[in-house]
Amino acid sequence: MTEAFVFLNEGFEEIEALTAVNVLRRGGVAVQSVSLAPQTTVTGGRGITVVADLDLAGFQAAYAQAPSQAVLILPGGPGTKGYFEGPKATAFEALVKAHHADQRPIAAICAAPTVLDAWGILAGRTAVCYPSLRLPSANPGRHPVETDGSLITARGPATSMAFALAILRTLKGDAIQTEVANQLLV
Amino acid sequence: MTEAFVFLNEGFEEIEALTAVNVLRRGGVAVQSVSLAPQTTVTGGRGITVVADLDLAGFQAAYAQAPSQAVLILPGGPGTKGYFEGPKATAFEALVKAHHADQRPIAAICAAPTVLDAWGILAGRTAVCYPSLRLPSANPGRHPVETDGSLITARGPATSMAFALAILRTLKGDAIQTEVANQLLV
Repeated sequence: MTEAFVFLNEGFEEIEALTAVNVLRRGGVAVQSVSLAPQTTVTGGRGITVVADLDLAGFQAAYAQAPSQAVLILPGGPGTKGYFEGPKATAFEALVKAHHADQRPIAAICAAPTVLDAWGILAGRTAVCYPSLRLPSANPGRHPVETDGSLITARGPATSMAFALAILRTLKGDAIQTEVANQLLV
Repeated sequence: MTEAFVFLNEGFEEIEALTAVNVLRRGGVAVQSVSLAPQTTVTGGRGITVVADLDLAGFQAAYAQAPSQAVLILPGGPGTKGYFEGPKATAFEALVKAHHADQRPIAAICAAPTVLDAWGILAGRTAVCYPSLRLPSANPGRHPVETDGSLITARGPATSMAFALAILRTLKGDAIQTEVANQLLV
């Protein structure tokens, strides 16, 4: 059963997205990357082309089987507008809102927390995003990564590993998080 | 003209390889990823599948046009043995040795410095690798990233961004390195 889904738009930030996949798999989390683009092969913001594990149909089947603690992970980057505008944006917005309404975990980094903010998910929550952006409805966080209940947010590329490790901690606990952090030389 | 080549074996460490591509492109470096696998699509050590920019024939054409400061970048990971054993290993070894004999730059991280050590490239140089490994012919470095002349080495995944920024500095200078580091939130 998939425990974490990492969403890939055309123009996704490669360090943010792929560090999450790598670090969570090191910790034994069943992670799948999900293309939000028309095709399964997606190109990131700096021209790195990745073959996603799932298209949206494959995601829907995996999501229906996912445990309650399964986390939705939204990387940022130039592709962030795809969460609003892409061919699957309406279905994606409904999914994220329903996931949140069930108090299930969501993680977003860089520009992606602005998407959660626009959808009302960060209201009154402590959260962070890329420093040049704003989260009007959130309480501004002071750390590179902020965890507030079921919501994890982080600032940007250089905090990708800390972001991934924070997600790993919520899924697998402190001992596995520490073991993976040591293996990564954090 | 390509200024940096990042080599991808089956089982390459995704954070190390793709952070280098991303960070260098942010700094305006013309980077190409090169598959050392039989096919252009290569899967990393934690199951992330990437479409490389070049196969070995494409690389040879690009390399023939590359400027003298063009850097060869070797990520580590479970795929490191592919530098020795893969279908293109003999051609790759000859290329790296000739590149080094011309005093052109080479960068390696994690397990990959052990490849340079085995090929005699690190003899008497200050270098580092993943801490559980050894570089018998090198002077052990004390920093997460070591630059000794034309050779840049680094310890492992958590030092990927510092490694990429050190390569960027050698190619584009301090000002661009600082600008990209700030953009990344280092």
